[in-house]
Amino acid sequence: MNPSERLLSLVENYLAQTALPAEPERLYTPIGYSLAGGGKRLRPVLLMLSHAIFSDNAPQALPAAAAIELFHNFTLLHDDIMDHAPLRRGKPSVYAKWGENVAILSGDAMMIAAYDRLARLQTPQLAQILAVFNRTALEVCEGQQYDMDFEERQKVSVAEYMQMIELKTSVLLAGAVVIGALLGGASEADCRRLRRFAVELGLAFQLQDDLLDSYGDERLGKTIGGDILEGKKTYLMITAMSRASEAEREVLRRTHADATLTDAEKIAAVKAVYDRLDVPHLTEQQIEVRFERALAQLDELDADPARVEPLRTYAESLLGRKH
Amino acid sequence: MNPSERLLSLVENYLAQTALPAEPERLYTPIGYSLAGGGKRLRPVLLMLSHAIFSDNAPQALPAAAAIELFHNFTLLHDDIMDHAPLRRGKPSVYAKWGENVAILSGDAMMIAAYDRLARLQTPQLAQILAVFNRTALEVCEGQQYDMDFEERQKVSVAEYMQMIELKTSVLLAGAVVIGALLGGASEADCRRLRRFAVELGLAFQLQDDLLDSYGDERLGKTIGGDILEGKKTYLMITAMSRASEAEREVLRRTHADATLTDAEKIAAVKAVYDRLDVPHLTEQQIEVRFERALAQLDELDADPARVEPLRTYAESLLGRKH
Repeated sequence: MNPSERLLSLVENYLAQTALPAEPERLYTPIGYSLAGGGKRLRPVLLMLSHAIFSDNAPQALPAAAAIELFHNFTLLHDDIMDHAPLRRGKPSVYAKWGENVAILSGDAMMIAAYDRLARLQTPQLAQILAVFNRTALEVCEGQQYDMDFEERQKVSVAEYMQMIELKTSVLLAGAVVIGALLGGASEADCRRLRRFAVELGLAFQLQDDLLDSYGDERLGKTIGGDILEGKKTYLMITAMSRASEAEREVLRRTHADATLTDAEKIAAVKAVYDRLDVPHLTEQQIEVRFERALAQLDELDADPARVEPLRTYAESLLGRKH
Repeated sequence: MNPSERLLSLVENYLAQTALPAEPERLYTPIGYSLAGGGKRLRPVLLMLSHAIFSDNAPQALPAAAAIELFHNFTLLHDDIMDHAPLRRGKPSVYAKWGENVAILSGDAMMIAAYDRLARLQTPQLAQILAVFNRTALEVCEGQQYDMDFEERQKVSVAEYMQMIELKTSVLLAGAVVIGALLGGASEADCRRLRRFAVELGLAFQLQDDLLDSYGDERLGKTIGGDILEGKKTYLMITAMSRASEAEREVLRRTHADATLTDAEKIAAVKAVYDRLDVPHLTEQQIEVRFERALAQLDELDADPARVEPLRTYAESLLGRKH
């Protein structure tokens, strides 16, 4: 096992040991279901990798890693209600399986369970870590609100979209690495660098997600073109809108709702505009810029490069970069 | 101003000073709306009165008082979605005014804001206080889940009902007084006594609420008989069911849904059964027992009785006892 796999297995063990009460059944069963639903455990692994740069005491950081994962899963439970999403990681969402009230309330309990893990940290830095966690958590809510606001708006700029995904996706990665670093005893300057690393990594990761949804990747289980069929405002769509002629804009706006077209025709029509406007290439460029900025922050850390390497390798694997 | 009014005004000032971000507007505006919606500020005042038994440094406890009030208001936002409640304190609920998604997400942000206030406590007891808060918060969710479960069940025992309202109502009062006491430097034994005080007070308070809904009180703005018209499982209903003949049970079960009766007739029919089964008197007795048990705990405190007096007076005023 490489370092990130070893830390992932520590996280999985810790999460599996987290006993939940049995009653009331409809409050706690969905939490176990959601936690067992898999996922990459991206956020807790980032926390552990960041912590491992500064400390060999991995178990110390596990409650924080679990807190971050519980918080992330809480956001999924509530987002799935707000988005009326029937599926999550290929299985029925809690919302679809148990209904809305259960998803609201067990989501709430899951957020409290996250704070409960934080309270178990044996550290004099608890107040500082709690403050980082709270700020992060509020920003994630802000990101979700902007995301919903943008779906109702005609026009969203690329800058607005980047700010939204920074809040909705990047800040939780940033919170994870900063909390890991704080627990490991990192300096303020290194916490700042790791924060910037994670913000840029998160942006690159989200843009790649947008790109793969339309242009595919066999590693992804998703149907290709889902975003196009939903008419979602992704980086590709917003970039295309900002460069399109009036005629092309009409295609981008209307195709997903055009009942005379098959799904395949809709996807082909929108991708033809994307291709004409060089959108895939521009997106790849943006991913590359963000990813390079992220890695540059790692070079600045006041730490033995050998200890930083596992985090760098993990970031590269996330973005599908061969090492 | 008496002591509780003075502490209430400190709490109101502190809450009013709590600046919320302006954007995203649909995330933060409902939080301000909900906090400005009034209410007695029962929980933060109890926290401050408990703290004042042991400490003269009231400002120290204000972030915790605000945290408890924010948490309580968060539960109202989400409960109103789950109960489809159009009104809250005589005004449109956040759910009714802005819709479900806004109520979910700004409720979430409100819970995080509660934890944000806790993180501002300048105290070495933060981990302990956070643990009490988390346990309390989870139990409140459990109470809400049992409440929803009970609405779907045919039969609920008096003991089950008491356990549910202990979780749904009492534990948050208990969390408030324990956190106040901890911040004031109370002993473990006194924290336990204050916890029991608040649990019993909360039960008395909830039973009185049930009683007044059917038998009225000019201090209450509520329509008399609302619980009867909704067919709600209150202490009165559950006690009546446990003592009723089969014929009386049919009246209790069916009256609220009987389309041939006016509201006034429904209320009169159910209350006739309650009266025949001595339910109002039994409820008053139970309120009295619980309230006496609560006050007895205050007598046991290892503190100057003069410092305990304001909390006792406040508890008496809550239950409408003249002093």
